[in-house]
Amino acid sequence: MDIERTLAALTLPEKAALVSGKKSWYTAAIDRLDIPALMMTDGPSGLRKQTADSGTTNINDSVQAITYPAAALSASSWNTDLLRQLGEHLGTEARAEQISLLLGPGVNLKRSPLGGRNFEYLSEDPLVAGELGSAYVQGVQSQHVGVAVKHFAANNRENQRFTASSDMSQRTLRELYLRTFEIIVKAALPATVMTSYNKINGTLNSQNRRLLRSILRDEWGFHGAVMSDWGAVANNVQALRAGLDLEMPGQGQASVDSIIRAVETGELDEGTLNKAVRHLLHIIENWLPADHHDTYDHAAHHDFARHVADDSIVLLKNRHQELPLTAKNAGNLVVVGELAAQPRYQGSGSSHVNPTNLVTPLMALQNSELTANYYPGYRLDQSETDDSLAQAALEAAKSADHVIIFAGYPENTESEGFDKTSLMLPENQGELIGSLAKVNDHVTVVLQNGSAVEMPWINSVDAVVETYLAGEAVGEATWDIITGKVNPSGHLAETFPRRLTDTPMAPTFGQDPHHERYTEGVFMGYRYYDTHEMHVLFPFGHGLSYTTFEYTNMAITENEHGATVSFDLTNTGDRPGQAVPQLYVANHASHVPMPTKELRAFTKVAVAPGETKPVTLKLTRRDFSWWCEGKARWQADTGDYEIMIGDSSRDIRLQTKLTMDFKNSPAPVTMETYLTTIVQDPRLRDIFQATVLAPKYAGENNFLAATDENGNLALLQDQMFLNMPLRAVIALGGPAPLIADFIAAANERKG
Amino acid sequence: MDIERTLAALTLPEKAALVSGKKSWYTAAIDRLDIPALMMTDGPSGLRKQTADSGTTNINDSVQAITYPAAALSASSWNTDLLRQLGEHLGTEARAEQISLLLGPGVNLKRSPLGGRNFEYLSEDPLVAGELGSAYVQGVQSQHVGVAVKHFAANNRENQRFTASSDMSQRTLRELYLRTFEIIVKAALPATVMTSYNKINGTLNSQNRRLLRSILRDEWGFHGAVMSDWGAVANNVQALRAGLDLEMPGQGQASVDSIIRAVETGELDEGTLNKAVRHLLHIIENWLPADHHDTYDHAAHHDFARHVADDSIVLLKNRHQELPLTAKNAGNLVVVGELAAQPRYQGSGSSHVNPTNLVTPLMALQNSELTANYYPGYRLDQSETDDSLAQAALEAAKSADHVIIFAGYPENTESEGFDKTSLMLPENQGELIGSLAKVNDHVTVVLQNGSAVEMPWINSVDAVVETYLAGEAVGEATWDIITGKVNPSGHLAETFPRRLTDTPMAPTFGQDPHHERYTEGVFMGYRYYDTHEMHVLFPFGHGLSYTTFEYTNMAITENEHGATVSFDLTNTGDRPGQAVPQLYVANHASHVPMPTKELRAFTKVAVAPGETKPVTLKLTRRDFSWWCEGKARWQADTGDYEIMIGDSSRDIRLQTKLTMDFKNSPAPVTMETYLTTIVQDPRLRDIFQATVLAPKYAGENNFLAATDENGNLALLQDQMFLNMPLRAVIALGGPAPLIADFIAAANERKG
Repeated sequence: MDIERTLAALTLPEKAALVSGKKSWYTAAIDRLDIPALMMTDGPSGLRKQTADSGTTNINDSVQAITYPAAALSASSWNTDLLRQLGEHLGTEARAEQISLLLGPGVNLKRSPLGGRNFEYLSEDPLVAGELGSAYVQGVQSQHVGVAVKHFAANNRENQRFTASSDMSQRTLRELYLRTFEIIVKAALPATVMTSYNKINGTLNSQNRRLLRSILRDEWGFHGAVMSDWGAVANNVQALRAGLDLEMPGQGQASVDSIIRAVETGELDEGTLNKAVRHLLHIIENWLPADHHDTYDHAAHHDFARHVADDSIVLLKNRHQELPLTAKNAGNLVVVGELAAQPRYQGSGSSHVNPTNLVTPLMALQNSELTANYYPGYRLDQSETDDSLAQAALEAAKSADHVIIFAGYPENTESEGFDKTSLMLPENQGELIGSLAKVNDHVTVVLQNGSAVEMPWINSVDAVVETYLAGEAVGEATWDIITGKVNPSGHLAETFPRRLTDTPMAPTFGQDPHHERYTEGVFMGYRYYDTHEMHVLFPFGHGLSYTTFEYTNMAITENEHGATVSFDLTNTGDRPGQAVPQLYVANHASHVPMPTKELRAFTKVAVAPGETKPVTLKLTRRDFSWWCEGKARWQADTGDYEIMIGDSSRDIRLQTKLTMDFKNSPAPVTMETYLTTIVQDPRLRDIFQATVLAPKYAGENNFLAATDENGNLALLQDQMFLNMPLRAVIALGGPAPLIADFIAAANERKG
Repeated sequence: MDIERTLAALTLPEKAALVSGKKSWYTAAIDRLDIPALMMTDGPSGLRKQTADSGTTNINDSVQAITYPAAALSASSWNTDLLRQLGEHLGTEARAEQISLLLGPGVNLKRSPLGGRNFEYLSEDPLVAGELGSAYVQGVQSQHVGVAVKHFAANNRENQRFTASSDMSQRTLRELYLRTFEIIVKAALPATVMTSYNKINGTLNSQNRRLLRSILRDEWGFHGAVMSDWGAVANNVQALRAGLDLEMPGQGQASVDSIIRAVETGELDEGTLNKAVRHLLHIIENWLPADHHDTYDHAAHHDFARHVADDSIVLLKNRHQELPLTAKNAGNLVVVGELAAQPRYQGSGSSHVNPTNLVTPLMALQNSELTANYYPGYRLDQSETDDSLAQAALEAAKSADHVIIFAGYPENTESEGFDKTSLMLPENQGELIGSLAKVNDHVTVVLQNGSAVEMPWINSVDAVVETYLAGEAVGEATWDIITGKVNPSGHLAETFPRRLTDTPMAPTFGQDPHHERYTEGVFMGYRYYDTHEMHVLFPFGHGLSYTTFEYTNMAITENEHGATVSFDLTNTGDRPGQAVPQLYVANHASHVPMPTKELRAFTKVAVAPGETKPVTLKLTRRDFSWWCEGKARWQADTGDYEIMIGDSSRDIRLQTKLTMDFKNSPAPVTMETYLTTIVQDPRLRDIFQATVLAPKYAGENNFLAATDENGNLALLQDQMFLNMPLRAVIALGGPAPLIADFIAAANERKG
């Protein structure tokens, strides 16, 4: 297609139609010019392809598809290769369904564990979400299927999501909530970006020119198309002017008419409309499906879903090496919990998939090396304890050698579209775990849930396996980990706080229907808990293995562009395993509030027993930078940093100081410069001595100086007075002309 | 003086001189028109009168004066009568010194316990600071001496105080940091208000028109004069235009010249200058000292200083009734600590007083009923342990029946002009307390400090007596409390957190030289700790007595203007005592983030043993209100509240629910109204049923409704879909005309 020629041939109504969507899942076709409709479909963890007439809202009515683990689980792999492969698998499947655009990945940060959609997001950390999201996008797009990176941006709560404003500082926005998108846009060149429903600082995102044009296109160089989330546009003309290219699903003729009217009245420049159409034509040109129908091996894809879960499930606790349980050591094993028979294995809402082959834990148990008696223990459809079910499970547990209970959030408490109100398991499940632990000393809890859970019973159980929402191979993967067929290597991509009230936004989250104020700023997730030295249930980055790893021989080389950090990783246990080394940086150089540490690099390394592997991680200048609001740019400051290598944010294995020289120019001296600053800088002190404390000032009302032991005048060493700027020195009687001389001389110094 | 005539007679240079201060402590005199110079002097807790030539900065060179307890202690009395008497005493003394304006009280809130000037401020709570500050002002001004309420406003850190900006939301500013000033300005009509050094949201307070004119004068009706803190003005012409009346101390002829030049060039309207001069002439007229010299009874005033401390010292802990110690039960008593001989009894900086009659604890011990051996134990001039001093104290403690150790912050760690960096006692003191507690089971710690202290040793000692900075009668008052001559009745006007990192602003306080971001918002002090359910060392409002109190018979009457809360207070112990009942309100009615409780009233009641006194506390509409930023006004919402009566914020004795009806009009219905809102309001639901779910819509693409058991259409009960505004309903295919009908009909309903 010659895009400029096609653009020139399109009529105004045709252009208006192209940018307005068509039915639920298509762009408008312009048959006259052979412009086909593109099909898009929901589902970052599996396709949710709906037929044209199934409507937007019959969310569970879609064609069968492989159901992969929800992002909350796959992100716990910390494995970019795995996420790339996941993308490839999804891309293959989408191509087979003639889909042009897969509406994902969802990459918003998990700001509060109450966020209703956390299960389909990746992490509380923008680097983890950005790196994993990029790999996923590269994977999907390698199969000639485009993505929609969503939801742009700062969409971190579900309640009133269509109208609430995410209010935060520019620094918070840049360092956290935009950072993930920036990484993905620059690294993976996504076909489209989907705007979220919410506002940022008062402006609706789908109509936010600064977000869609200045930042996304001008700063980051995005060349794809921008589409709205379904129903996110309040005024489609304003949206077009702000930089939106495609309103979805569009309000039919009403949308088209309002664009035509706006162009005719001059409210909308046709050049602006042409820009949007041009972006869409490029998308149609680039992502049109091939004519032939590809197919894929469903069984192999199911196995891959199992592999993703295997690589991601997090062993949170394993006291006395309770796990793995094998045919040899399991003895009389009792399995409890209705979730073993009816697992939670995927999220609700637009990411809901119609699975091809759901294998429940109970089904998979038959094919594992273990044998066990099963008791439902509780009912999923109620939160009160069912005494007879509980009693039967407890009776069996009394004489069991080991007990495994499946627990989790029921589907109706956790979905797109509304936020949670508690982090507690339903009462009947929590009670049963406590009761089981009273009658049996070897209790393992297997969790199925979309995000962090409070565990008041944590000290009474031996092991906790976090499977999140593990996809259609949930059963197989769960036993892979429990039996040790797979050595667990998942690590939490979010903090599990001890209790909801420990979260920084506990008093404010979702309280104001119109505003969500991100008052914690950059102190979100582990950045908050670590800086406040708070106890947490399980820290960010935490995950156990059946083997052990040792970190040694840290070395760093640096220059003004960044640093290279290397170290050795040894598997000191007796089985193969994968470690997730995490590199955190502490900034002691910058004069703004800083978290005690921030994740700046990570990797995943497979190591054989006894083997030592060298690991190298790179840090760029950006990894030492913070967003300076005054200058509206990233700033890296010369000074001291701490480099930490950890197995979690709370398990730092290697640590060393590092001084970076970013060749910053010295700060200008002004009337607002404080005496403290002058005293602490040897060169400024000398200049001050020469210009202000010189003999001609000695005889005057000299409250600034005292004679030192050598008979020389020196600046008064009194903290209260040093904490004055030059302006105040003059206001209180200091020598204005001499201070002016000092400022002039000081600003001639070199960096 | 005929002010308008005088104003007309003044030349431009004379007017410029009047608003520019004169030397350190005077306004300019205009001899030609018999306008005298007014003298002002520092010192809310005692006069710091300096002679004309002592200069601004020789802070410790002032005439002798009674040194009253610092505000941190006197505020702990929670006794408005006492603060009024304190004001009267200070006013009398000021009059005797021919002083027109006493530069105090300091009423800023203690936002962080690191704040360098907390010792001379009253509380973390605006009501406590406002009520006590008002009483103090009324007391001083009753003696025909004016005050300067300082530091207006939001001056809560000392580092970079001349330039840093206190950045916060309007709600935080109004509900906390301005609230205290509002209470005092309205209740006590202070002669002057002193602007602080800092900025608020980027504008220097002494040049902040909104603060000085719109809020202070127009909204609150302030009729006095506004002066700057010493050296706070950066541009005196801009300050005059913003509403400052008097630059202090003034930059001599430079200030005068710049005003003259500005009027001549038209940069400053002479009418604006006249306003300032008029305010100053009123001050001179109203607060000119009488010609005759009054005197006062120094001994009686010293006794009053002791009484203030007696009524204010806080008994924080008293395990096993370790205290009181009397001649009968003290046995072999050992007193430790150089602070007993060289007490910290006042703050550093502008509030420093040259005392008339300092009585140290060691001196007062001689005149008490107790006898004891004294050991210095540590050196105040170093933080390292002096082994021989420590050893001697420990040896003596081994065989003692009781040990009292005096501990506290040395003066060089706590002053106006810079902030603290730690809440820990010096290492030598902390270690010694721990060591003493190891060799003796009856250790009492007496604290001398300006603000909250961490107490890692708290569980090892029996008793803790918080004397803050107790003034020149420190010794007498300390033994009054320890011996039970006075039954302690002080309560903390600030929270003592367990550790510095527990404070909400721990990672940000003082970190940015240019900005202090009040990101905790209204969640400051107990509003933060209580809402996050955090453990604290000692909660806000906490204070023990040697007797016990019982609270019974709570009753409430309410109307749309407020409520009256009454209850009975019984002294159930065997000695007279004073209780401090505190009334907290929890707001469950408003849809904005709310602390779990806020102090809305308090009193102090003396009760004889066995006596029951009825107590009545009033709540006004304002006590149920929050600052609505959207409407820029106070708003009280109809709905549920909880009324709590406590002995501290964590010791609630009585509690009851209350439903208030403030006759609010119903919220308008718009395209942004959510289906949830409609479903939850019976009347809106009925209107929606009639207008949208009516039969003519039944046949269409009806994703909004389902047929209920009676065959009627009812709104779909799905949380995800109910969480949509009407705008999104239309965007996803809902019936736009019917929804417009609904909005019209809904907005005709009555409140």
